[in-house]
Formats: sequence, C-alpha cells, structure tokens
Amino acid sequence: MNRCIRIALCAAIGASAFGSTHAQRQNDSQKPLTIASQGSFFVGGELKKVEAPPGAPPTAAGEITVNQMYVQYQIPQVGRRHVPVVMVHGCCLSSKTWETTPDGRMGWDEYFVRKDRSVYLADQVSRARSGFDPTSIAAVKSGAAAPSTLPSIISATHEIGWIVFRFGPTFGTAFPDGQFPIESVAELYKQMIPDLNALLPTPNPTWTNMAALAKQLNGAVLMGHSESGFFPEQAALIDPSGIRGMISIEQPCPADLTAAQIASLAKIPTLMMFGDHLGDAQSPLVSWQNALETCDAFVAKVKAAGGDAEMMHLPKMGIKGNSHMLMQDKNSLQLADLIIGWLDKHVERS
Amino acid sequence: MNRCIRIALCAAIGASAFGSTHAQRQNDSQKPLTIASQGSFFVGGELKKVEAPPGAPPTAAGEITVNQMYVQYQIPQVGRRHVPVVMVHGCCLSSKTWETTPDGRMGWDEYFVRKDRSVYLADQVSRARSGFDPTSIAAVKSGAAAPSTLPSIISATHEIGWIVFRFGPTFGTAFPDGQFPIESVAELYKQMIPDLNALLPTPNPTWTNMAALAKQLNGAVLMGHSESGFFPEQAALIDPSGIRGMISIEQPCPADLTAAQIASLAKIPTLMMFGDHLGDAQSPLVSWQNALETCDAFVAKVKAAGGDAEMMHLPKMGIKGNSHMLMQDKNSLQLADLIIGWLDKHVERS
Repeated sequence: MNRCIRIALCAAIGASAFGSTHAQRQNDSQKPLTIASQGSFFVGGELKKVEAPPGAPPTAAGEITVNQMYVQYQIPQVGRRHVPVVMVHGCCLSSKTWETTPDGRMGWDEYFVRKDRSVYLADQVSRARSGFDPTSIAAVKSGAAAPSTLPSIISATHEIGWIVFRFGPTFGTAFPDGQFPIESVAELYKQMIPDLNALLPTPNPTWTNMAALAKQLNGAVLMGHSESGFFPEQAALIDPSGIRGMISIEQPCPADLTAAQIASLAKIPTLMMFGDHLGDAQSPLVSWQNALETCDAFVAKVKAAGGDAEMMHLPKMGIKGNSHMLMQDKNSLQLADLIIGWLDKHVERS
Repeated sequence: MNRCIRIALCAAIGASAFGSTHAQRQNDSQKPLTIASQGSFFVGGELKKVEAPPGAPPTAAGEITVNQMYVQYQIPQVGRRHVPVVMVHGCCLSSKTWETTPDGRMGWDEYFVRKDRSVYLADQVSRARSGFDPTSIAAVKSGAAAPSTLPSIISATHEIGWIVFRFGPTFGTAFPDGQFPIESVAELYKQMIPDLNALLPTPNPTWTNMAALAKQLNGAVLMGHSESGFFPEQAALIDPSGIRGMISIEQPCPADLTAAQIASLAKIPTLMMFGDHLGDAQSPLVSWQNALETCDAFVAKVKAAGGDAEMMHLPKMGIKGNSHMLMQDKNSLQLADLIIGWLDKHVERS
C-alpha cells in the first residue's frame, strides 16, 4: 500500500471513528440530553478522634470523618456497555475543571456522557466537596501547636497560573496560536482554589479511593491531570484489579519505578497526552518539556515490558497551540474524540 | 361549609396539587431523565492583591480571586416556563446536601428537575468548589501574623451532628419515629466538611452573589437551610429585584429588622419549614424550638405588613419525625411536593 492510499484510509477511519467535525460537535451539544441515572456519593473515609472539636463551637471531644472522596456521576441511557470514566482534577482546582469551560462551552464531563460513557467526577481528598482535616489549623489557633506546623497551602496567583498553564510566554501576553479561550481567563481564575494536599497522609488517600472506586464500578478507566496526572498509575500500584485503562494528561512521570512496578502497570492500557509550547512559557516551578521527556521514558519502559502505552504529543500529531488546561481549550472536544477513539480501540476491545 | 366537607376538599386538593404517592414518587425516580442543558459557572468574585502568594510555591507577588460562588445547574426540557430554584446548603456542609441522600435515594436537586424546575446548586463562598481565601493562614505560617488571627473553623463532630441535626435525644439513640435514614448516618458524616465562614467579610458575599444570581436568571426562588436559612432574606435586603420567592428551612430569624426592612421583604412570597422534635434533642449550641418561635414572629410581622408568608411546621400538619436534615429524610420527596405545591400557588401565579 503506498503512502497516499494509507493516508486517505487513515483520514476515512478518523472521520468515522472520531466522528464529528467541530460544527457537528457544537450542534450536538445543543440537543437535549437523556440520562439513565445520576447522583453523588463518597468513597473511603476514616474515623478520627479529636480531643476537642477543631475550632468553634467548643464542646466535648468526639469523632470526625477524614480522607473521604466526593464523587458525582451521570450514566447515559445507552452507556452501560461502555467502561465508565473517572476524571480527577489537578492542583489548585476542583472537578469544575471538567465542566462548562471558562467561555461557556460544554465540558468533557457532559461530552463523554453524550458519547455514551458513564462519567464520575471526583474532588480530590482535602479539596472542595471532599472536605479536609482541620485539626492541625485548629491546634495552632488554640496554641497547642507551632505556626510552622500549619500546612503549606498551594494557592496559585493569576500570574503563576498564566505561565504554568502555558497561556503565553509572559503574564498578559498570549501565544498567537494559543487554544485557550484567553478572553475568559478570569473565569478560570475563579476555579483556582487553595490546595491542602500538604495535609494528606502517605499514601495519598485519593489514590486508594480511586482504586476502590474502579473496583466498586466493576471496572473503570481512571483519568488524571497535572498534579493528579499520575494518580491512575499510583492507584494501580495499590490495587489494579478494577482499573481497565489509565489516561494521564500533562504531568511528570517518576523515573524510579521498579521493574516489578513497570510490569504491573504494563498490564493496563495507558494513554498520555501533552499539549503545545512545552518549553515556551518559562516557569521556575515546573518544566513541561522535562515532564514530557520523563513520560516518553515511562511509555518506552512500559512498551519494553510488553505493555500497551501511547503518548499523544499533540503538536507532533499536527494539533497546535494547546495549553496545560487542554480540556478547556477551544479544540477540547476534538481532543476528547481522540481519547474516546483510543478508549474504543485499546480498552473496549481489550 | 361544615368542617367535614372542608377537610375532604383539602385532601382532594392535596392529592391533585401535590400529586404523587410515595410509591409513585419512587417509581418516577427510576425513569430516564431528559434535560435541556446543564453546566456550572461562578457568580461574583473579586481581585485581591497578595504580597507574596499564600503558601508554597514561593514566587513574586500577584493577584488571586476571592469571594466567588460556584453554581451547578440543570434545566429540564419543559421547565423554562417555571421560575428557577436556587438551593444553598448550611453549616459544615456543601451542595451535596441536596443530592443523593445518605441511603442512596434521589435528592431534591434531581426531584425538582423532574418536576420541571430549573435547579441551581450553590456552594457557599469559602466552602467546597467556591474555594476560600487562604491568605490569613499563610500569614500565620510565615510568622507575619499571630496564631490568634487564624479563622475559627467550624467542624462538627459526629456527636455534635447527631444532636444538632436532631436524630435522637442523645448520641447513638434515635427517635423511634425519626425520619432520618439513621442506618446510613456515616454517609452524612462524610458530607460534613470544615466551615470557613469566619473568613468572610461583611456583608457575606454569598448573600450578594445569591441576589446577583437571581437577577442574572431574570427571576429565581432562593432556598436556604440552617446556617443559610435566612440567606434568601439577607439577599433580598441587598437587592430584591430578581427574587421571586424565599424558602427558609430551619434557621433562627432575626428580631431586630426595621419596619422598612420588613416592608421590603413583605413584597416577596415567603415559605418557612420546620421539622419535628424541636425541643427533644438538647444542644448547647442551638435551640430549634427557639428558632421556630423567632420565625413564627417573623412570619407574623411580614403578614402584618401585608406580605404573603407561610410557616409549615410539619408536626402541626400531621407529618411527624422530621430531622433538621429534612431534605434527606425518608419522606423527603413528600416535603419537596409541599414546597412545589407552594411554589405553584404563591410564586408561579403571582
């Protein structure tokens, strides 16, 4: 088969498998949505005895619940045959990440449901509706502990967000080909909330809860982003039994995994995705170019161990200008279709 | 008309207006749900300059966004003719309050949508997905402020929750006729998250944002519970222009409102609802019996000013055993029907 014919065939497969054009996707998003069921619940959670309730109101000692993970879900009417997808947000953010974009377009949460997938959004333990353990803050306020024992709260400024999320080379200047809806960046800033992960024990209860959720669902694909990008793999290292696939979006990958760990992870199909301009927004906090390289190395190790791992580095696929918040970028539904196409090929048929 | 006939007529009206039996309600909740649109957005939010980003990572000074309110919504396919309902949760809780109950039944959020109402769930400012202002905690950790300046975080223990939520007279003992699904109380405990309202400026930005949301929706009914029970009225005192109705569930009512304030509130239909056993679970923190009395007085003042205000004290209506978390009680959908019936009569037709 010559090269021209191969390309034509791929294009045809792309059109049928990934389906829709931009106009079709937007049009579909206007139609009513029918769901079989929806709701929310918690995974995990442990009892903790407190000497006195943290903070007001002052009463006798007792127990609180900590380390639980809030999960919100929608199951489409025809989706039960598909493997559910669990989406977990990154640093300084909540599940809002996956919902309506800053400029008001449909988020991945609804788009995946419209593509007949059950979707589970989890707020990381110690964030948003999952709550956090307040005892260390209360202890400092009461004088029982030193100020230095307070958690290091990560709260990104707009200036940090602009660079780390790669909207442009310097704060206030956008990349000319940037896909982020930069005119609505103020709406993204409202999503950026304090990150109290410094309070968490080891291993991170979000990892344990993600593994437990996948098992509870009798199989699920876990998706993470940025801070949580490698959480699917961390969950699989705790208990792989429910994890049918792992999708890791823009995070560093650890270099110190053992051969046994790689062999374990190699049993689960893995997709990684990185956007554009990885080296073009210089942050002292993170090098996305370096992150890509560590994950290229991880993918190579998994493949060498016989695993099914794929790196989608978008610019290499001809998709330009994607930011770190690629699930909110203008071409977000095109990227969702790439993931759904991968799911169909690597998870659903496996 | 004699008393017997009046009662028979009321029963007939009840059956037609409030519609369904318990079995019907449960059956309806199993059917697929079709919605016209759904999503999430923020209301409000202000820029705040920070000398250095609060907590790690350390970089230059910049700006963060504070006091924004996260809102999640669903619009039913046939619901546009109805006035939207905004639900705001109470202390130490999030919008989870209104979702799937601790024992796994449908929450008011979905039930109202199935009854053709657009529903907007708001996380209070400084809670859950709305985030909070971390600067005062970071200032103490860095040594720039004294530990005493830390916020008094309200974090209820299970022991406090049991009594304040009126599950029984003493911790671990339930009221024999209690409506709360007490076998699932551990799931409620997971919903109880730290309350940082002590961080908020005056007036509470949640009030301002609720008023703004009602206006943005071109009219909405505001519903509050417990800590937020009087928030609809507080919002109306800031800007009543978008507020079509106020529903206040189990909170104290202030006694010090001026005649002008009462006259302003009297222009908006008001419903208050209280459950059972108000004096039977003795908490040092709150007297629900006293709260009822203050709200009876408020309702009387509004009526005297020509307003349309109604108190539904459930035991007086023959509905027994309701807890403070009545939207999660076993008869929660019966109570929702009472509210929807009130909406149809007092708001939709006004």
